[in-house]
Amino acid sequence: MKKSKKLVIGSVITGLVLGSLLGTFSTSEAKSEHKHHRGKIKNVILLIGDGMGPAYNTMYRYYKDNPNTPEMEETVFDQHFIGKQVTYSFDHDENITDSAAAATSMAAGIKTYNGAISVDMEKERVKTVLEEAKENGMATGLVSTSQINHATPAAFGAHDISRSNYNEIADDYYDELIRGKHKVDVMLGGGTDYFIREDRNLVEEFKEDGYSFVQNRKELLRDDNDQVLGLFAPVGMDKMMDRDENTPSLKEMTNSALDRLRSDKDGFFLMVEGSQIDWAGHDNDVVGAMSEMEDFEEAFQAAINFARKDRHTLVVATADHSTGGLSIGSNGEYNWNPEPIKAAKKTPDYISKKIMEGMSVEEALSRYIDLELTEEEVDSVKNAKKTGDVAEIDNAIERIFDARSFTGWTTSGHTGVDVNVYGYGPGKENFSGLIDNTETANNIFDILR
Amino acid sequence: MKKSKKLVIGSVITGLVLGSLLGTFSTSEAKSEHKHHRGKIKNVILLIGDGMGPAYNTMYRYYKDNPNTPEMEETVFDQHFIGKQVTYSFDHDENITDSAAAATSMAAGIKTYNGAISVDMEKERVKTVLEEAKENGMATGLVSTSQINHATPAAFGAHDISRSNYNEIADDYYDELIRGKHKVDVMLGGGTDYFIREDRNLVEEFKEDGYSFVQNRKELLRDDNDQVLGLFAPVGMDKMMDRDENTPSLKEMTNSALDRLRSDKDGFFLMVEGSQIDWAGHDNDVVGAMSEMEDFEEAFQAAINFARKDRHTLVVATADHSTGGLSIGSNGEYNWNPEPIKAAKKTPDYISKKIMEGMSVEEALSRYIDLELTEEEVDSVKNAKKTGDVAEIDNAIERIFDARSFTGWTTSGHTGVDVNVYGYGPGKENFSGLIDNTETANNIFDILR
Repeated sequence: MKKSKKLVIGSVITGLVLGSLLGTFSTSEAKSEHKHHRGKIKNVILLIGDGMGPAYNTMYRYYKDNPNTPEMEETVFDQHFIGKQVTYSFDHDENITDSAAAATSMAAGIKTYNGAISVDMEKERVKTVLEEAKENGMATGLVSTSQINHATPAAFGAHDISRSNYNEIADDYYDELIRGKHKVDVMLGGGTDYFIREDRNLVEEFKEDGYSFVQNRKELLRDDNDQVLGLFAPVGMDKMMDRDENTPSLKEMTNSALDRLRSDKDGFFLMVEGSQIDWAGHDNDVVGAMSEMEDFEEAFQAAINFARKDRHTLVVATADHSTGGLSIGSNGEYNWNPEPIKAAKKTPDYISKKIMEGMSVEEALSRYIDLELTEEEVDSVKNAKKTGDVAEIDNAIERIFDARSFTGWTTSGHTGVDVNVYGYGPGKENFSGLIDNTETANNIFDILR
Repeated sequence: MKKSKKLVIGSVITGLVLGSLLGTFSTSEAKSEHKHHRGKIKNVILLIGDGMGPAYNTMYRYYKDNPNTPEMEETVFDQHFIGKQVTYSFDHDENITDSAAAATSMAAGIKTYNGAISVDMEKERVKTVLEEAKENGMATGLVSTSQINHATPAAFGAHDISRSNYNEIADDYYDELIRGKHKVDVMLGGGTDYFIREDRNLVEEFKEDGYSFVQNRKELLRDDNDQVLGLFAPVGMDKMMDRDENTPSLKEMTNSALDRLRSDKDGFFLMVEGSQIDWAGHDNDVVGAMSEMEDFEEAFQAAINFARKDRHTLVVATADHSTGGLSIGSNGEYNWNPEPIKAAKKTPDYISKKIMEGMSVEEALSRYIDLELTEEEVDSVKNAKKTGDVAEIDNAIERIFDARSFTGWTTSGHTGVDVNVYGYGPGKENFSGLIDNTETANNIFDILR
């Protein structure tokens, strides 16, 4: 990889055909088999655990382990492990991918620069698997716990030179028509702030075009319209363990999406993102990370349950990159202890906000963490409170969990390690072994065509 | 997993049959196919990259990447990726494995406590795949860059309640006979100090029984006896980049072992360990880690080259655990830079020893590192020298490489993340997907029986 501004082979031509030529990891022998699957595979569900590097999957096994048996039990992920995915982007300055470039690879089958939303190195739009599905008359859906116009879902349903153009991405969902129709039938996640704005009210526009609009769990479960916009938070949704009963889980959103999409006789494409595994990773918050892994695992199980009955649905779950340099064990200890993490009732984010809102450190810690904390631990949070910075309080609480569980972190950013791939249903063999992230999209294109 | 002293199911019975029952990850459907392979698979080569967690394999791809192409080229590992292995041990106090317990799992098919050399939880001996091979009249070999009686090779050719009993383990190689014969025909690595001792001279004993004894590269390559003891260092051998021309590479030792073992008409079992990937990891030395990855990759390629011609040889390469909490990227940077690591001509270990022996900091750094260092970097090493502690000098040099390459570490010990499995040749499909480390041994047992 060269970091100069040289011309990148293939990137000058906008198109999908070249996608498979770009990857060094393409398995061309396997490709020819795809065609035969089209009849067998009616629906494709792609689940992306944002930031879910391999250490997250193993750590989650340790976290869920039954302490009354000597063996470690398999997670849902373990039961369906099929391979690994290479994640690097073609960015000129960075060889570790961001979520936008990685999602573009998985959505459009090309390598691009960090920040790109399904545009190539020349900033030209490239077709996504969701668009291909809609062109073929299939139903489509995007589900996430971030705002629904965040990088990962955006790369499936929008095009932009920058992931930061949140309003423009939300506009794309409405404005970019395929055969005169909106391209995403089901949108569930956070992001009201981007859809109801001073300059434009996309919610009203979608409603006028026949979409239901739902804003909480009850409304979501009560509605059965094929087309729905569900926005459950102004920006990102709460993490699983911080949610109240008005907020749907990722599993509930996934099931609700499947209930709608299944009615299309031409089949469907659905992308489900466990968005905040990554956010917990950036925050170096192991409590939040395990919470979001659980939310994502339940959504994966829901997808498998659907596919098991349907028998014509391919389910693939993977990640875009790893986040935080997470490690199972730290500081020389040969033991990772899940118990302190299980003792948390809320994330450090939630607890630190309560402290900032005026709750005493003692009360917040004892109410939300089922652990006998040492004086030093309590003092570390009190000292952090003196700074008046909620991030410092958050960090102090996170450090208690890290130290007690022997969890390690190396960065507030992403890392380059290959990520795991999990699969269920017909065609999963094409995603097995070591594949490039562009192959994920190209495999799906082959199925949809 | 329970950390109390409760009875662990299966561990009371010494035996191999139970091994496959212990693993939660056993794939019993696949097992029945093994039997049919015996005729097809004559030889088994198991390569173990000690400490080679998944981040090492991806980092090595970044390290070997051709900077003149936008794509990252595949490593030899990448070309043969088939799955992952679960590594935890049954230790009562630690749920992250050490090399002894993991090697016992891969050698004998059981879970045991950390430190165990092919003994079970009750400290009873368990048969190893190397012993099974010898019982069946096959030739056997152990190759490592650590002392040849270190934990990993020891678990294949010896039995001890503790990996620390180095002398007793070396004695086992001579004393534990199978059908009246020594069980390991080819032993190549370091460890003269343990074989020529005041109380016993195992070298003389092996020589009397017909073994060649070689101590340097020339002697190794000149000798063609079927049975050989090659000890190339008092304890561990030098790392690849620190070696002089008298020291064989892991590839040369592997090829020399194969040249001898191939003459047995009943086939052979060979274990090859890239021992010091782990040692570099413990030291948090990214330069040494990439050096040892290269040494190990070349040995893996040598094994594949043999198998490609032979067509009846199964090659499996994997790791026992990950070490150091290594990450590709650190401190918020989305870029990992291999250039400073490529600029090193010797490891920080080597350079710091030269400084301790009297070479000036300036001369040592400029002679062995092909980089323009800043004044601050040079001063950091000078300040470390003032402590008079070679480890401090070593750490100061390592920190320069970490900071410039954006390499992260979280621990001086091991971490729990699943490790990669690579395979070539007939029967490799039984090692694919997610397997427990006990299945590695049990798959080999099935082939040998």
